[in-house]
Amino acid sequence: MEYYSEEISSLIDELGRLPGIGAKSAQRIAFHILHMPKEEAKRLAHTITEAREKVHYCRECFTLTDSDLCPICSNPRRDHKKIMVVENTQDLAAYEKTGKYDGVYHVLHGAISPMQGIGPDDIKLKELMARISKEDVSEVIIATNSSLEGETTAMYISKLIKPAGIKTTRIASGVPVGGDLENIDEMTLLRALEGRTEI
Amino acid sequence: MEYYSEEISSLIDELGRLPGIGAKSAQRIAFHILHMPKEEAKRLAHTITEAREKVHYCRECFTLTDSDLCPICSNPRRDHKKIMVVENTQDLAAYEKTGKYDGVYHVLHGAISPMQGIGPDDIKLKELMARISKEDVSEVIIATNSSLEGETTAMYISKLIKPAGIKTTRIASGVPVGGDLENIDEMTLLRALEGRTEI
Repeated sequence: MEYYSEEISSLIDELGRLPGIGAKSAQRIAFHILHMPKEEAKRLAHTITEAREKVHYCRECFTLTDSDLCPICSNPRRDHKKIMVVENTQDLAAYEKTGKYDGVYHVLHGAISPMQGIGPDDIKLKELMARISKEDVSEVIIATNSSLEGETTAMYISKLIKPAGIKTTRIASGVPVGGDLENIDEMTLLRALEGRTEI
Repeated sequence: MEYYSEEISSLIDELGRLPGIGAKSAQRIAFHILHMPKEEAKRLAHTITEAREKVHYCRECFTLTDSDLCPICSNPRRDHKKIMVVENTQDLAAYEKTGKYDGVYHVLHGAISPMQGIGPDDIKLKELMARISKEDVSEVIIATNSSLEGETTAMYISKLIKPAGIKTTRIASGVPVGGDLENIDEMTLLRALEGRTEI
C-alpha cells in the first residue's frame, strides 16, 4: 500500500539514493521541497541539471570544471613543472585553500583498491603517465590519502614514475597540527616518529 | 577565492540549504551528483520539479496529493464522519501505516507556536472549522504531536469544537510499546500514569 502519492514517493526514493541520506532524512527533505515556493524548487532542479551538464573534466588535470582547461591549468603563474597527484577534486580544493601550493594538479578520481575491484585502469593514471611523458615535469608530489588505498596508489605511482628519473615525493604523514598526542592513533604516531626531521 | 567552478559552488550552496544537510554533506552529495550518469542527474532534477509542480493540497483534508481530492477523501469506504487532525502529511502516513484507522484526516500543516510566531491563522484551522460546520461530523480526533506546540494546538481546537457539541478526543500519551521504563522521560511516565486504564 502506498501512503504517499506517486510523485511524493518518487521524490523520497530519489533523495534516499544520495550518499548519507537515510529514509528519514529523505522524507524530511522531500516534504521540505514540497513546501518550497515553486520558484525555489525549480532553481534547485535547474542547478542540478546545469552542474551536471556543464561540469566535466579539465582536459589537462582532470579536475571537475566548467571550462575546457581549469583555472589552475590555464594560469601561467602556476609552476606547471610540479604536479600534485590527488584522489579527487575535493582534495585539490583542500590544498588550494592553504594558498601555499603554486604547482598544478592531477586528479585521479579514486584510488587503487583490490578489495573494491578498483585497478590502475579505473583511475586517471594512464592520463597522468601521458602528461608526464609529453610535458617537462620536475616533480610529482603524491598526495593521495593516508589510507590503505591511498598508500597502495602512492606506491604504484612512484614505481611507475621513478624509472623516468623524475623526482617523486609523498606528502608527510604525522600528527595533525594542534592534535593532542593522547588522542591520536598508533599508526599516525609511528608515522610521525619515522618522518621526524631535525630542528 | 573560489576553489570550485561556479556551477559546483552553486550546487553545494543549494544542497546545503536543505534541512539536515551541513556543509560537508552538501559537498559530498554535490560531487556524487557530478559523477552520476547525466540521465540520472536529469531524472533527479525532473523528479524535484514534477513533485513540486503536481503535488498540492487535497481540497478537503489538505494533505499533499497529486489529485484534486486525495485517495482517502475520495474513498467511499472510509468513515467521513470521523476526522483525525494531524500536523502534517507524514503524520497522516504514520497513522495510515497502522492500517487500523478507517476515518478521514485533516492536515493542519503546522502547530500553534507563540514562540515561533505561528498563530491559529497560520495553520489550516479555519479550513477545519469550515469542514466541521458544513459536514456531518461525529468525532474529531486530535492527533497533534505530544509537544508543547502540539498540546497547545490540541487545547485550542478542542475549545473551538466542543461548543458545537461534537465529540472531541485526544490520542493517548504514554509509554511507547516495547519501551523500557528506565529510559523514558518523566513527563511521559507522568502522562502514562494519569492516563491509566483498568485492566
